Amino acid sequence: MNERTLNKDLPSVIGKIVSIAGWVDVRRDHGKLIFLDMRDRSGIVQVVATPKAAEALETAKTLRAQWVVEIEGEVKERPENMRTEDVLGGIELVASSIRILSPAQELPFEVDTEVNIDTRFDYLPLTLRSRRSRDIFTMEATILEAYRKSLRTQEFVEFQAPALVGGDAEGGAAAFKVAYYDEHTAFLATSPQFYKEIMVGPFERAFTIAKIFRAERSATTRHLSELTQMDFEMGFIENELEPMAVLERVVKDVVREVAEVHGDMFSRFNTNVPLVPDAFPILTLREAQKLLDVPEAPDMEPEHERQICEWAKTEKNSDFVFITRFPTAKRAFYTYEDPSEAPYSRGFDLLYRGLEINSGSQRVHNYADLVVKMQERGLDPDKFSFYLQAFKYGMPPHGGCSTGLERFTARMLELPNVKEASAFPRDMHRIDTRLSE
Amino acid sequence: MNERTLNKDLPSVIGKIVSIAGWVDVRRDHGKLIFLDMRDRSGIVQVVATPKAAEALETAKTLRAQWVVEIEGEVKERPENMRTEDVLGGIELVASSIRILSPAQELPFEVDTEVNIDTRFDYLPLTLRSRRSRDIFTMEATILEAYRKSLRTQEFVEFQAPALVGGDAEGGAAAFKVAYYDEHTAFLATSPQFYKEIMVGPFERAFTIAKIFRAERSATTRHLSELTQMDFEMGFIENELEPMAVLERVVKDVVREVAEVHGDMFSRFNTNVPLVPDAFPILTLREAQKLLDVPEAPDMEPEHERQICEWAKTEKNSDFVFITRFPTAKRAFYTYEDPSEAPYSRGFDLLYRGLEINSGSQRVHNYADLVVKMQERGLDPDKFSFYLQAFKYGMPPHGGCSTGLERFTARMLELPNVKEASAFPRDMHRIDTRLSE
Repeated sequence: MNERTLNKDLPSVIGKIVSIAGWVDVRRDHGKLIFLDMRDRSGIVQVVATPKAAEALETAKTLRAQWVVEIEGEVKERPENMRTEDVLGGIELVASSIRILSPAQELPFEVDTEVNIDTRFDYLPLTLRSRRSRDIFTMEATILEAYRKSLRTQEFVEFQAPALVGGDAEGGAAAFKVAYYDEHTAFLATSPQFYKEIMVGPFERAFTIAKIFRAERSATTRHLSELTQMDFEMGFIENELEPMAVLERVVKDVVREVAEVHGDMFSRFNTNVPLVPDAFPILTLREAQKLLDVPEAPDMEPEHERQICEWAKTEKNSDFVFITRFPTAKRAFYTYEDPSEAPYSRGFDLLYRGLEINSGSQRVHNYADLVVKMQERGLDPDKFSFYLQAFKYGMPPHGGCSTGLERFTARMLELPNVKEASAFPRDMHRIDTRLSE
Repeated sequence: MNERTLNKDLPSVIGKIVSIAGWVDVRRDHGKLIFLDMRDRSGIVQVVATPKAAEALETAKTLRAQWVVEIEGEVKERPENMRTEDVLGGIELVASSIRILSPAQELPFEVDTEVNIDTRFDYLPLTLRSRRSRDIFTMEATILEAYRKSLRTQEFVEFQAPALVGGDAEGGAAAFKVAYYDEHTAFLATSPQFYKEIMVGPFERAFTIAKIFRAERSATTRHLSELTQMDFEMGFIENELEPMAVLERVVKDVVREVAEVHGDMFSRFNTNVPLVPDAFPILTLREAQKLLDVPEAPDMEPEHERQICEWAKTEKNSDFVFITRFPTAKRAFYTYEDPSEAPYSRGFDLLYRGLEINSGSQRVHNYADLVVKMQERGLDPDKFSFYLQAFKYGMPPHGGCSTGLERFTARMLELPNVKEASAFPRDMHRIDTRLSE
């Protein structure tokens, strides 16, 4: 292969002979001329094959979408009336030779065509190359790194939470069973909760990017069987407002970053950079229900989550809204309840454009209290002996929360289905291919 | 809680009354005086309780290691003859009041005592607080982030590879079985290989930090059942030297970062910042075996890996050495073999201080060739139809590699057992607690 020039660098070498390489995105046959839109990781550029290079023109005629080719040619400015507003729309490469690196079989459909979501998933190795998918997963990578960066700046240390666990951590969520060694049964983690609490001991402030697994028999637009959670936990807090403040800063840092580097993406997805006010609105569950004029209930219905987000957007100029003070009975056993605030807990959710993307709380930190909480829920403290050591041996008041990466990404681009934000989505009907009945 | 000052900030508030919070690391009873070494996330500082604050002194007498306390007092410079060389060795806090946030039960052993590795793992929620463990996992977090940062700089896009897969990807490694929905069996990924190759299609250069799972019946110092792999893959390469060059730059960037921020750690672990020459030495397997004067063999014995690393250190001033050109038959089916180089493949390993920490190769990119390779190994291409789509629809020549995070960390600090570099190690005898027989 000749030394390769990336498409994005072509405007700086006008008049030079260079070699590019990439995928044929689109091929247009104008009889005497063949036009190719060539995609590489840096952008898409137009190539023209003309009769002046007869062999290249013949090769160009055989090419189809997704063929991988190397093309040598001269970089030219396009005639003024032929320029487009694309980034590389002012130039083209006039091919002198074309070398096929890899042919492609006939495609089942054009990559950038809209197809139904199941067909898209059936052909992921192909459809992930679409502009839409490349946007989604570029966005997701940016969100993830901005999230981590903000936490590092706030003095959190990253660690690896395990995916294989000895029991069902949250004591309630549906967990997948794993055949471990010698007839032992292990489970796939439904949350990194216990491990991040344990890591408060060494680091006070810890975070993990953890895969979690939910064996729920639901195939809605909100459900995935394998998810990526961004979890943090912090010690020495007074109440839940402190993890909420850390989270708010994280979300603001993420929004600033995506607005800066992906400003163009929002318009392609027919949405906008999220609205972020100076301070996110905070409503107790009861306040939210009063605002919506709905009866008091122990949790929010999906429809009410959407309505309260509409309220936050209209009244508070915010795409984000915190809901706090859920009934303790509806939250996980480790959720802290201050006696003066009973029966409400120090749990919180963060809603973003109609969907809960984060859930957190201050936690119980006293060993004896935690044992009682377990017993009240019918859990056997002996089965939690490993986790309980953290509390036996001195745990400060602490709290934290968990953000779903796929949910955050899905709402950022207003994707109708959270599965679209998973590169390789797993649910009850699919692992790569559809599960046969 | 009063507004908290972190220990590291105390030298700048000498003479002031402040409040600190943390764990009692060590308590020394001098009769009329009690000294406490107080640990928070920023450092360890000495606190002294004196009869001038009688109530604080009484409380201090009840404290033991790992109790969580909040202490108010005056920051004072220590008398010149009492200063130590620790970071905060020039100051102390003279306690005026002490508030217990969380007591701790009697410890099974002092946290920084050396105990056997199984006992350490039995008490991880406690032993992770040791200086040694905090160092190890701080180092690991730094390695991970420096690794990712270097790849981002080299234009790689991060993605999430799945942990749940439909079959055993590498077709050989022992995979854990998962009870999926409706009697379906899934597996835990033994490698993100197929997925990162697929992601070459959209991004050319992709990386993932992926959990992998190996159901091997081995409990050596090198084996874990759950591991964190740092995998990248890149398209449009000429041969394996290109991913090797990317990896070399990544490793250099990691070493530069850890040398800069963790210089002090190397001496605590009785080792040094790794030796990094301008160019890592590269030996073919045959060259390595000739150098060691051992018979030609299809792979390296662990003892030979150690010896060749000694050679690289002595002769090439390098703690790293690449081994290339392994026999194709000994590598995974997707490893590229150039006809002119048969029977040797374009695979490579990177050894670091006696251990293989990375393995990679140029891959087969032609669809028909890949199908033949599968058939030669007795694999059924129909079972790989999802993966094969990437090749059906145009795949450039590509290659990549996989670095074990725990192995890299373990060799960085010369830990005798790779399990020490996993915060919550899993093996055939343990998931948090020991598995009962």
